[in-house]
Amino acid sequence: MSPLRVGIAGLGTVGGAVLRRLTTDAAALAIRTGRPVEVVGVSARDRAKAGTLPDRAEWFDDAVALARAPDIDVFVELIGGHEGVARDAVEAAIASGKSVVTANKALLAHHGMALAAAAEAHGASLSFEAAVAGGIPAIKVLREALSGNAVDRVYGILNGTCNYILTRMEAEGLGFDACLAEAQRLGYAEADPTFDIDGHDTAHKLAILATLAFGTAIDLDAIHVEGIRSITSDDLAAADDLGYRVKLLGVAQRTRHGIETRVHPTMVAKGTALAEVKGVTNAVAVNADAVAELTLVGPGAGGDATASAVLGDIADLARGSRVLPFGRPADSLERAPRAPMQRHEGGYYVRLSVKDRPGSIAAIATRMAAADISFESIMQRQPAASLRSSASGHVPVVLITHATSEVTIREALDAVEAGGTIAGKPQLIRIERG
Amino acid sequence: MSPLRVGIAGLGTVGGAVLRRLTTDAAALAIRTGRPVEVVGVSARDRAKAGTLPDRAEWFDDAVALARAPDIDVFVELIGGHEGVARDAVEAAIASGKSVVTANKALLAHHGMALAAAAEAHGASLSFEAAVAGGIPAIKVLREALSGNAVDRVYGILNGTCNYILTRMEAEGLGFDACLAEAQRLGYAEADPTFDIDGHDTAHKLAILATLAFGTAIDLDAIHVEGIRSITSDDLAAADDLGYRVKLLGVAQRTRHGIETRVHPTMVAKGTALAEVKGVTNAVAVNADAVAELTLVGPGAGGDATASAVLGDIADLARGSRVLPFGRPADSLERAPRAPMQRHEGGYYVRLSVKDRPGSIAAIATRMAAADISFESIMQRQPAASLRSSASGHVPVVLITHATSEVTIREALDAVEAGGTIAGKPQLIRIERG
Repeated sequence: MSPLRVGIAGLGTVGGAVLRRLTTDAAALAIRTGRPVEVVGVSARDRAKAGTLPDRAEWFDDAVALARAPDIDVFVELIGGHEGVARDAVEAAIASGKSVVTANKALLAHHGMALAAAAEAHGASLSFEAAVAGGIPAIKVLREALSGNAVDRVYGILNGTCNYILTRMEAEGLGFDACLAEAQRLGYAEADPTFDIDGHDTAHKLAILATLAFGTAIDLDAIHVEGIRSITSDDLAAADDLGYRVKLLGVAQRTRHGIETRVHPTMVAKGTALAEVKGVTNAVAVNADAVAELTLVGPGAGGDATASAVLGDIADLARGSRVLPFGRPADSLERAPRAPMQRHEGGYYVRLSVKDRPGSIAAIATRMAAADISFESIMQRQPAASLRSSASGHVPVVLITHATSEVTIREALDAVEAGGTIAGKPQLIRIERG
Repeated sequence: MSPLRVGIAGLGTVGGAVLRRLTTDAAALAIRTGRPVEVVGVSARDRAKAGTLPDRAEWFDDAVALARAPDIDVFVELIGGHEGVARDAVEAAIASGKSVVTANKALLAHHGMALAAAAEAHGASLSFEAAVAGGIPAIKVLREALSGNAVDRVYGILNGTCNYILTRMEAEGLGFDACLAEAQRLGYAEADPTFDIDGHDTAHKLAILATLAFGTAIDLDAIHVEGIRSITSDDLAAADDLGYRVKLLGVAQRTRHGIETRVHPTMVAKGTALAEVKGVTNAVAVNADAVAELTLVGPGAGGDATASAVLGDIADLARGSRVLPFGRPADSLERAPRAPMQRHEGGYYVRLSVKDRPGSIAAIATRMAAADISFESIMQRQPAASLRSSASGHVPVVLITHATSEVTIREALDAVEAGGTIAGKPQLIRIERG
């Protein structure tokens, strides 16, 4: 059978791993797919850094020219960025009817709908397993394996940098800044970590997962996004005492108000699959009517793990499997009603610095009761030196509420704050049930 | 687009769920796949029990006649059993070029090679996601998503009955018989539980997973199979003390002696993904060169969960995705060298009833040292009443060894037994590292 001819644009960590594997494992891949796969074109910023190319691979200074090259069947975009050359090259490849494989979550989160529509119009395919959760085949599972399900919720740990930092904070009792510095030293966090730790990377991935899960249009702007900067080691210690861990989750869920999509630090109960996901590992969990719950755990980043996803997409193309980018026609993906965050319902972790005098807790409990908020647990004690603030006349109190709504808890806490029994702002962390 | 016409044979728990979902969720499935799916034929043992059929569905007393019916595109076999009508019907459907979807692990474990070859010869497709681990898409992930990987090991908790019993024994400190009876009362175990608790069900599933993982011929006879009858609550209590849980695992792994396939009770360290899998839930973990480790956790049985897998296969067919049964030509699946169990290498849990007199432990330790076996831990104590046997002049001793070989540990224990320092047979449980 004639080889599947591949052009690779971008030779960073992922591109380098894909090129290496397509070269050294070519024979094995041909056996596994029944068709030889050959790298015939390569493009990257710096020819000198690209090293020795495979025998038949031609060098392209211009990724767009590679995308249009008549002798490639598949254009693999590993450049990154949602504008500029990555977008231009993917659009060019689609316009010339080529199959596109990309790991570019930002490109999909911003332009996925237009790209999918263009791919369908040109009979091109568009695959992006590598764009979400690295080596975890979350895209294929949602798009294909769970086709017989109505999905209620898809959620997960989608950013290894954040999970690494939170895991280290919990294990070592260290602060956020120290763990971020460590993550940067180890190469798990960028020099400018904003995109990861403020939740935007997770939001891009969640936008894609939500579209696949619910058959709705990509809606990045609908996502409520909070990062992990506000989490303290006090929160992690209190969580531990109460049977929880803190994870940055992306959650997309069907509610009676519409599709609720949110990224924020979250309390998850110990013993659940997600609570046990440590370090840079990622996880994606799905609740759906037939399968009930399915959880996938694996590497969320790294050259080889992400290459695994890219090669899986290429293997599908080599086998002749063609699935629409989002499993169904792009024009059938409707914009879902956005469930506003104020309508969110769930339990909450609340940490307050309460005036150490008779009646303080009673006053708070009375305010909460007036709002119909009940408690799973109340903890007033000094587990760590940093929490001991009696000297200042305040003691830390941690509450775990039963399910209530975002607007209710926020209004109740505003009332507590106005009542003058607490110092500073309450810390509020949502609880996600497994 | 013309509907995909489905015939369903077998209306047990799974067949009933598939029929119900294909009827009530028909519109949703058509949107998700771009093609209507219609049940046009049904066959089962008892017409009276089948209830109301969908409007266009014809009744067949004979599953083989349904398999051959000219107006069906897909034959869904949910009868079960590796001979008789299930086999006849699947062979008939393949011979008439139809797509076959089956949940029948026994049929595949026994006749999968011949069926795959026949399907390829007749241009038929053969899908069996539901045959392994219920709603967990392990087949699709191994066959497609991980195509760019060389797999080193695939292993998992593949039998919900056994995992339920072991989970209950651990949680309640109850014996095997009591927990089996409870599982039977709850419908998690058959009246004759032999097939599940002696490991044969796990072996069938493992045979299929190994073929997909390594591209080797199905080799059910090569699998070393032990069940869970020998596990006592003492073992579970000792495991707990030492940081382990006991699970019935199926493990297929590439070794320097060939492919090692085995089903046996296994110690897994707490905190690993598999150790946290409780009750009837299943899990499949894969170690491979690119992805490193990927773990899938979900429901291993039940009508709806298994229907999810069947519907996923049907959705692939509706979308026109056609993959060879094992992802590559059946005639390329070679019989792998069988790694004999005596060559197995790993750590071991050993529980001995040792004579309570000076020098006993020293004698055992000396024998083990002579065989170059070293220990991760040695525990001599009476954690539970049932372990306290000093009255009989014996005390329980539990050893966790570092990696050694099966032949080495067995010979060393034979020598210990011959030395007369222990009573009864040693209990030996292999340790699997995550």
